[in-house]
Amino acid sequence: MGKIICTGLGPGNPDLMSVRSDRVIRGAGHVAYFRKKGRQGQARRIVEGMLAPQVVEYAMEYPVTTELPFDGAEYNDALAMFYDDWADRLVAVAAGADVVVLCEGDPFFYGSFMHLYTRFQGRVEVEVIPGITGMTGCWTATGTPITWGDDVLTVLMGTLPEADMVDHMRAADALVVMKTGRNLPKVRAALQAAGRLQDAWLVERGTMPDQRLARLVDVDVSDVPYFAIVLVHGQGRRPEIGGVE
Amino acid sequence: MGKIICTGLGPGNPDLMSVRSDRVIRGAGHVAYFRKKGRQGQARRIVEGMLAPQVVEYAMEYPVTTELPFDGAEYNDALAMFYDDWADRLVAVAAGADVVVLCEGDPFFYGSFMHLYTRFQGRVEVEVIPGITGMTGCWTATGTPITWGDDVLTVLMGTLPEADMVDHMRAADALVVMKTGRNLPKVRAALQAAGRLQDAWLVERGTMPDQRLARLVDVDVSDVPYFAIVLVHGQGRRPEIGGVE
Ligand SMILES: C[S@@+](CC[C@H](N)C(=O)[O-])C[C@H]1O[C@@H](n2cnc3c(N)ncnc32)[C@H](O)[C@@H]1O
Ligand SMILES: C[S@@+](CC[C@H](N)C(=O)[O-])C[C@H]1O[C@@H](n2cnc3c(N)ncnc32)[C@H](O)[C@@H]1O
Repeated sequence: MGKIICTGLGPGNPDLMSVRSDRVIRGAGHVAYFRKKGRQGQARRIVEGMLAPQVVEYAMEYPVTTELPFDGAEYNDALAMFYDDWADRLVAVAAGADVVVLCEGDPFFYGSFMHLYTRFQGRVEVEVIPGITGMTGCWTATGTPITWGDDVLTVLMGTLPEADMVDHMRAADALVVMKTGRNLPKVRAALQAAGRLQDAWLVERGTMPDQRLARLVDVDVSDVPYFAIVLVHGQGRRPEIGGVE
Repeated sequence: MGKIICTGLGPGNPDLMSVRSDRVIRGAGHVAYFRKKGRQGQARRIVEGMLAPQVVEYAMEYPVTTELPFDGAEYNDALAMFYDDWADRLVAVAAGADVVVLCEGDPFFYGSFMHLYTRFQGRVEVEVIPGITGMTGCWTATGTPITWGDDVLTVLMGTLPEADMVDHMRAADALVVMKTGRNLPKVRAALQAAGRLQDAWLVERGTMPDQRLARLVDVDVSDVPYFAIVLVHGQGRRPEIGGVE
């Protein structure tokens, strides 16, 4: 009787995954990961060179989306069936051996793994190994602390309505915006409206070999890849205090 | 000519530090860490058994605080001198060899290391290795994703004024409150006022051998250690969508 082990891969550089994830991935007999059809996929790319020669791979390819509206009910149904199907298949494999599911960053932080996780409940033992989040890799790349003192940090998705974003951007000291991609023009407009645009950074592929770091005002917002995060650093609410409690 | 390497230790379990941190710590000749006088210190405890036999240790002991009001200007001055002094000493050591500074969690996320970091600028080469944050270790301990879909996550310090906390607790979907300790009664009152108390968890010493997990309503708020985080999970703003962009 095996179990499902979901391992956080960290932000991208394999040297930044945890000692435990590293060990579990190198020793895995069965490895599953999400990817778009026809792509290698980010998760699989991170573990390149780490897998044992005899490993069995399960590439979980998202249903093709060209005919269906992306946020419609029909696509939603296709996606639910896709997750149902893969949950069943991995539970079946786990009847005989451990299955390692690869998750970018940390599995419990905006991870697609949760759609499988809810479907595993009560059917199979599941272990979750945390990872360094993508945002942590990105703020390390800026060379400046994201927060200190009493700073309030808010994490937003670029998919949110612009007005909601503006409210949160005004209220917090430090900001992280994920799922930027084609939402970047909206994110930029929201930062401008909230008076935070001048302090915003864009980090693409943080900690990966082709990492790029730029001030958001200097970026062509129409030309930005999926794997990017926008950051605004906090200034520390009580300079020089903190560290002792 | 050496450099300063600040390594994130992760949430507490040594198996959860990054492969790079693990390697750097095991190979270190000079290791520095903060602690309170008379204590081993959390950071030093995490690396117990990992240091080379001939390592030189620098325990940076916070100035004793019994006579001075904790948030007064005088204590502030003492703390600034303490950081000045240690920055000078570590820069001097780094003239001849690499110095590894140990940081709980991630160095750039509410880390005391930043008070040294600002003082190192322009004087010595500094490398920062990210780590899994304490909050990530804590939400992994709850066995439930902290965020998914379009959830908004806000991270608050228990040292904030109660009214500020309430506003942020009302506005966000998912919540993390750090530096709870003696602020826990205030944190609890703020959660109650914001209507979030029933959903709040308290995680003490997340990922450590004596980890404790409880619903905050069931906890005696007068008896809580320093190393604890309060969490409220997000519910996902668009169920079943997400994962593909
Ligand atoms: C579905 S979320 C997954 C988050 C992941 N579980 C984590 O802990 O970081 C995908 C988003 O993460 C962000 N992201 C993750 N890692 C990143 C990296 N290394 N560089 C830039 N963005 C990253 C991007 O904004 C992307 O749209
Ligand atoms: C000065 S902050 C340092 C945060 C650290 N740099 C990080 O990335 O998590 C100290 C606070 O972190 C929280 N904390 C860090 N690790 C924790 C853990 N393993 N369990 C519970 N709380 C933790 C506590 O709330 C504590 O008051």
